[in-house]
Amino acid sequence: MAEAATGPLRVVILGGGFGGLEAAKALATAPVEVTLIDRQNHHCFQPLLYQVATAALTPADVCWPIRGVLSGQANTRVLMAEVEGIDLATRSVRTSGGAFPYDLLVVATGATHAYFGHDDWEPFAPGLKRIEDATDIRRRFLMAFETAELAADPAVRAALTTFVIVGGGPTGVELAGAFADVARHALPRDFRNVDPAMARILLVEAGPRILAAFPPKLGAYAERALTRMGVEVLTGTPVTAVDAGGVVAGGERIAAGAVVWAAGVAASKAADWLGADHDRAGRVNVAADLTLPGHPEVYVIGDTAVVADARGKPVPGVAPAAKQMGIYVGRAIAARSRDAGPRRAFVYRHQGDLATVGRKSAIVKLDRLTLTGFAGWAFWSLVHVYFLIGLRNRIGVAFSWAWDYVTFGRRSRLITQPAGPEPAQPTSAARRATRSRTSRAR
Amino acid sequence: MAEAATGPLRVVILGGGFGGLEAAKALATAPVEVTLIDRQNHHCFQPLLYQVATAALTPADVCWPIRGVLSGQANTRVLMAEVEGIDLATRSVRTSGGAFPYDLLVVATGATHAYFGHDDWEPFAPGLKRIEDATDIRRRFLMAFETAELAADPAVRAALTTFVIVGGGPTGVELAGAFADVARHALPRDFRNVDPAMARILLVEAGPRILAAFPPKLGAYAERALTRMGVEVLTGTPVTAVDAGGVVAGGERIAAGAVVWAAGVAASKAADWLGADHDRAGRVNVAADLTLPGHPEVYVIGDTAVVADARGKPVPGVAPAAKQMGIYVGRAIAARSRDAGPRRAFVYRHQGDLATVGRKSAIVKLDRLTLTGFAGWAFWSLVHVYFLIGLRNRIGVAFSWAWDYVTFGRRSRLITQPAGPEPAQPTSAARRATRSRTSRAR
Repeated sequence: MAEAATGPLRVVILGGGFGGLEAAKALATAPVEVTLIDRQNHHCFQPLLYQVATAALTPADVCWPIRGVLSGQANTRVLMAEVEGIDLATRSVRTSGGAFPYDLLVVATGATHAYFGHDDWEPFAPGLKRIEDATDIRRRFLMAFETAELAADPAVRAALTTFVIVGGGPTGVELAGAFADVARHALPRDFRNVDPAMARILLVEAGPRILAAFPPKLGAYAERALTRMGVEVLTGTPVTAVDAGGVVAGGERIAAGAVVWAAGVAASKAADWLGADHDRAGRVNVAADLTLPGHPEVYVIGDTAVVADARGKPVPGVAPAAKQMGIYVGRAIAARSRDAGPRRAFVYRHQGDLATVGRKSAIVKLDRLTLTGFAGWAFWSLVHVYFLIGLRNRIGVAFSWAWDYVTFGRRSRLITQPAGPEPAQPTSAARRATRSRTSRAR
Repeated sequence: MAEAATGPLRVVILGGGFGGLEAAKALATAPVEVTLIDRQNHHCFQPLLYQVATAALTPADVCWPIRGVLSGQANTRVLMAEVEGIDLATRSVRTSGGAFPYDLLVVATGATHAYFGHDDWEPFAPGLKRIEDATDIRRRFLMAFETAELAADPAVRAALTTFVIVGGGPTGVELAGAFADVARHALPRDFRNVDPAMARILLVEAGPRILAAFPPKLGAYAERALTRMGVEVLTGTPVTAVDAGGVVAGGERIAAGAVVWAAGVAASKAADWLGADHDRAGRVNVAADLTLPGHPEVYVIGDTAVVADARGKPVPGVAPAAKQMGIYVGRAIAARSRDAGPRRAFVYRHQGDLATVGRKSAIVKLDRLTLTGFAGWAFWSLVHVYFLIGLRNRIGVAFSWAWDYVTFGRRSRLITQPAGPEPAQPTSAARRATRSRTSRAR
């Protein structure tokens, strides 16, 4: 390539998630200059965020400084800055930390939660994408019990200890199961005025069944398991309103102490930055080699891209897909830096689907293997510990799980100051909700 | 007592720190109704907060839900609410969660950092009292390196990687040593544009020597040890200004990427609530049995009270003192609830002074024992692990220390969203500082 004549290829990677990190690692020995830019200083292991939200793990268990992961790669620098735009003509990324010219660009900026045109619901129903979301949800969940403990009116206590999880995908199912576990097993001895074991946990799904990505039999298994744990699973129940007092689901008002949004995601602003074609979720349409059509120097990967698998089905927005794309692109760039021939198209290999259902059960669907119950949970645990980065985190997380499994404890039940927008006011909201219910009853 | 005739004595304890928690525990089997009120849901082990601020431990390592600690005490309830006032005449505490009448009151609301009339310095130089302070200081320290990595101007990088700790007591000494360790050992491999090993760490003390509470020989030992680690110890150097760009210390402007305040504390608002006599630091004057003069039903303990020891010297504001007062008051109340005779006066037993100096050295001064260096550090580690609450935390913290000791690693290098007031803007501030330095040089 022309630029290579004046020095090593400058590769800029935007995003230190699963895709961006794998792309950088695949370039470890390539004769290129890698700059990885992320607005956070840490990589977040999103599949375990729900365990931080439910006080089982601490932020440091599931987040690692990106610098630490890549510190051994001499050709790579990591910068913490917010992307503000991409200039395709001059090949430069504008960020809060200055402009960075590139010869090759990898856009791996992920996705965020989407409210389908109801962004005003966000303050009342946070999603679960960043570590701050997880500590925010943890705070709301625990604060609801604290506020209920202070409430004299049983109806107010009942409203405050009702939790609604919107969306019956894997995140919603895992959150509902974990909330039920904490409420039933970890908290009851701690309260005098409130019985956390009586907390209502509702999993609300607009579609006909939960876990649509899994075979119907496994979805039904999970639904039965959740129901046995005391989770109320409402399918075919669209949520039409969310406010400080709770939700309207299937036309019915449900007063709640906390609401969590697990119903949808939208891609990051990459399509805007690139002025690119995208689907309704904002994901950029890419060519078979994951480049932006007309721009062979720009790759878009992970949750930011829409790609079809071998059967023409869209590649799911899961960590293994992002990692596979990151490795593919890293190797493609390494080959280009060595002037190797044209690359084959990206092929997605679906490795399977996993989801926990409470503290000792999981469903696992691999190619030839289906597991449920404790066997599924054991498999799930091994896989997730394996994919954590660093021996220190593996030991720490495995120890936490083993400890909690034996003691039913939840160590990280900390309410820390809110970050970002002010939280909903559960007390007054719940009171309002209770009043309206009371007046209807009259 | 008169109230006991109508039911068990109602004991309200304000604050779940070392004093309040020990008072509640000492009442476990007494025929009283205990209500412990704290504005946080967790007890914070303040002696180890500096390790959270320097990324060695995580918040869950040093904070535990107060409910969890007291869940086995059937006569005790824990409420999370903010105290708004105390009505001595009607014997009632006003809080954000309602009013709580008491027969006996224990005020153990601790202390906060004090800026000696310069409260405007707080946004630029946070103190270290709550867990949010620790994660805030961690964020400022790590963000300074991140911003420096993005800076083209070496003078800006030098300013950003200068850290000023104001106050040469144990907190300041421990923070300075830990900052130096992280900068010298944990960070260097992670950066390309900045050399964290060249970071300047300044410990600034207005008095003639650091660690005034220790014998001069140990203070001198600590100063030599810090200096060997590359900490610049400035004694006899009052700080006269603090702003977004750094400090003025001993008349000289020092541009800094982060400033930490470890120079002074003031008691909580208890003296206001009680309308009580207090010293200059706001600590309430109490009688020999730790009651408020004229109000034998009100105890004031810990950092909120000013008490003299057997030799007439003020009892220091340390965790063991607060614990001793908590146990004394808990037992006194238990005796009163059983109509036992009058109590002896509170007697403080000074157990010794300890402070770490970096990652493998500490100074220890007990009655008959003086330790320095590694022996001191080993003793310090054992003592602190022993005083943590719960086997889970002891194992976790001991494992973290052992791991970091071997690997030089710092696991919790997370920058999370700021809580509370907006942080200083180190980049622009440092640039300003650098410019003014440059113009002076012309």
